[in-house]
Amino acid sequence: MRPVKARPLALSAGDPAGIGAEIIAKAWQALRERGPSFVVIGDAQLLASAGAGVKVRVVTGPDAAPEVFGEALPVIDIPLLSPVVAGRPSPTYAPQVIRWIETGVGLALSGAVSGLVTAPIAKAPLYEAGFKFPGHTEFLAELTAAERFEGARGPVMMLAAGDLRATLVTIHTSLAKVPGALTIESVVNSGLVTAQALRKDFGVERPRLAVAALNPHAGEGGALGREEIEIITPAVRALRDLGVDAIGPAPADTLFHAEARERYDGVLCMYHDQALIPVKMLDFWGGVNVTLGLPIVRASPDHGTGFDIAGRGIARPDSLIAAIKLADEIAARRGA
Amino acid sequence: MRPVKARPLALSAGDPAGIGAEIIAKAWQALRERGPSFVVIGDAQLLASAGAGVKVRVVTGPDAAPEVFGEALPVIDIPLLSPVVAGRPSPTYAPQVIRWIETGVGLALSGAVSGLVTAPIAKAPLYEAGFKFPGHTEFLAELTAAERFEGARGPVMMLAAGDLRATLVTIHTSLAKVPGALTIESVVNSGLVTAQALRKDFGVERPRLAVAALNPHAGEGGALGREEIEIITPAVRALRDLGVDAIGPAPADTLFHAEARERYDGVLCMYHDQALIPVKMLDFWGGVNVTLGLPIVRASPDHGTGFDIAGRGIARPDSLIAAIKLADEIAARRGA
Repeated sequence: MRPVKARPLALSAGDPAGIGAEIIAKAWQALRERGPSFVVIGDAQLLASAGAGVKVRVVTGPDAAPEVFGEALPVIDIPLLSPVVAGRPSPTYAPQVIRWIETGVGLALSGAVSGLVTAPIAKAPLYEAGFKFPGHTEFLAELTAAERFEGARGPVMMLAAGDLRATLVTIHTSLAKVPGALTIESVVNSGLVTAQALRKDFGVERPRLAVAALNPHAGEGGALGREEIEIITPAVRALRDLGVDAIGPAPADTLFHAEARERYDGVLCMYHDQALIPVKMLDFWGGVNVTLGLPIVRASPDHGTGFDIAGRGIARPDSLIAAIKLADEIAARRGA
Repeated sequence: MRPVKARPLALSAGDPAGIGAEIIAKAWQALRERGPSFVVIGDAQLLASAGAGVKVRVVTGPDAAPEVFGEALPVIDIPLLSPVVAGRPSPTYAPQVIRWIETGVGLALSGAVSGLVTAPIAKAPLYEAGFKFPGHTEFLAELTAAERFEGARGPVMMLAAGDLRATLVTIHTSLAKVPGALTIESVVNSGLVTAQALRKDFGVERPRLAVAALNPHAGEGGALGREEIEIITPAVRALRDLGVDAIGPAPADTLFHAEARERYDGVLCMYHDQALIPVKMLDFWGGVNVTLGLPIVRASPDHGTGFDIAGRGIARPDSLIAAIKLADEIAARRGA
C-alpha cells in the first residue's frame, strides 16, 4: 500500500463525447488497490455512468483522494451544462473541458497534486468555441509560463513505449512544412530539454542522446538534402559543446531496431511520424505522451478521443494506465 | 537437391571496394548445398580472395553454374584493370562495375538466368566516371526499357522484411521535395505495380493494399496538410476503380504494428523512411529490396557497400541470402 499521505495525481477528464470516462473508469479499476491514486477533474455524473463497475465519490479537493481511492473514484465535480452524446463532439461543452484542464494545472502548480494526466481532447470542438492553442501541450505551456523552471524550458513532447523514449522537434506540422520549421536553435533546445529530462525525470545519470536525420541516408553528404549539413550537424555539435552526450544525425532507419536502441537513452526526432511509427510498432496500445521542460509533471495517453468507438465499452485503458504510472514515477523523481 | 537443369540467378558483384565479394562468398557457403544456385558476374581474382573458404570456378556462361555450384562459386570473369583497396572507393573501376550489371541484365533478358541479384554499389565513384542514373533501379529500368512487359510498368521499389512488403512512391528524394513529387498519377501507378506484383510475383490471389498518408494523423482533415485530400485519397479511389482492393490513406503510425500488418498484403509508402523505419525494425539484417514492374526479376540487399567494414571479415550476408531466395521464388512464380 502507498502511504496515505501521498499526494495523488490529477486527471483531467478530456472530451466528454469520447472514450475518456470509460478509460478512466477502467484505469481506476486496474489501479484502485495498488495505486498510483488520482483525482479526476470532470463531470461526476458522466463518470458514474461510464460502466466498468465504477463507483464515483465527489471530493472537494485532492487531499481526500488517496483515502477514497480504494473504494471509489474521487472526482472534483465541474459539471457539464447540457447532455453529451457519445461519439458526437460539440462546442457546447468546450468551456468545461478547458476548465477541467485549467483546474488540473492550478492544482499541479500549487503542489496539491503531484502531476497532471490529461485524457484526450479533440481540437475541432474547442476551436469552434474559441480555443486558440494547437493542442493540449501548447495550452499547458501557456498556463505554466509564469512559473519558475530551472534549466532548458519546453514544452517538448516525448513519446515513451517499451525501452524507447523519443522526443520531437516538430509535432503537429504538415510534412511539407517540417524542413522549414527546423532551426539549429529548435534542435538544440529540444535536445537540451530531452537530456535534462532524461536525467531529472527518468533518472538516467549520464544520458546518451541520439539525434535522427531528416533525409534518407542522412542526406548522403548533401545529395539527398542539406538540412543535416546546415542544421542538424551544427546542432549536435552545439549540444556536445553544452555537455550533452549527443550523436548524430543518424539515418532514421538505423535508429530503432533493438540493437540500435541499446546505444542511447533517448532519441530526438525531427517530425511526428519519424517518432510515432517506431513508438506504435513497439507498443501500439501502451505508448505514453510526456511533456518535458514544464514546471509541472504532465503525461497523457498517445491516442485520441476515440469518437468512433465511444460508448461501446471496448476502449482500452492501457495507454492511460501507462501514463498514470509514468507521471507518478516522474513526480517521485522530481520530488526526491 | 534442385534439378540440375534449373537456371541459376545472376549476381552482379557490386562495388569492389565494399563488402560485396565477402558477402557473396558467405552466401555461397550458406547456399552451396541446397541452392538457389547463382553465377557471379565480377572479378574472379577478387572473389577468390574474399575469404570465408570460398573456391572460385570461372565459367563462360550461366549454363555450367548449377552443376559447379555445389563445389565452387561459379564466376563469369570480367576482370578489374587495376588493384582495389578495401574501403577505398574509386572511379577507376566504375566501367567494370557497370559492365557487370549490364551483363547480368543481358543474361536475364535473354532467359539464360532466372533473375538478377545485385550486390551494393556506391553512387559517388560511378558518378565521377560519368554514370548518369540516380541508382541501380533507374539504370535497370533503362536497360530493360525496350523489352515488352505486360501490365503496369515500374520500376517500383519494394522493401520486404518478415511479413511486411512496403513499396515506395518516392525513393531517394530529400524530405523537402517529397510533397511536390507526389502526384495522383505516381501514387496510382505505384499502387497498380504493387498490386500486380503481389499477385504475380508473390502469389497473393486477391492482394489487399494499404496506402499510407503523408502527414501526421493523415492530415487531420486538411489542418495538417492537404496532400491526403488532393492527391492520396483521389489516388486510392482511382485504384479501387481500377479493381485494386486499396484502403487509405491511413496515418502512417497506425500501419506497422503486428495487428495492422495482418490487414494488408502490401503497403504503399510515400517516402523512404516511412517504409525503411518499419522494415529495419522488423529485420535489420535480412531486409530485401525488390524492383517491381520490370521485365526481369531483380532483388538486392537493402544495405549499402559497407566501406567502413570492408576487408574485415565481419559483414553479414543475411540480406544478400534473403535477396537470392526471394529472387528465386519470384522467378519460379513468373516462370510458372
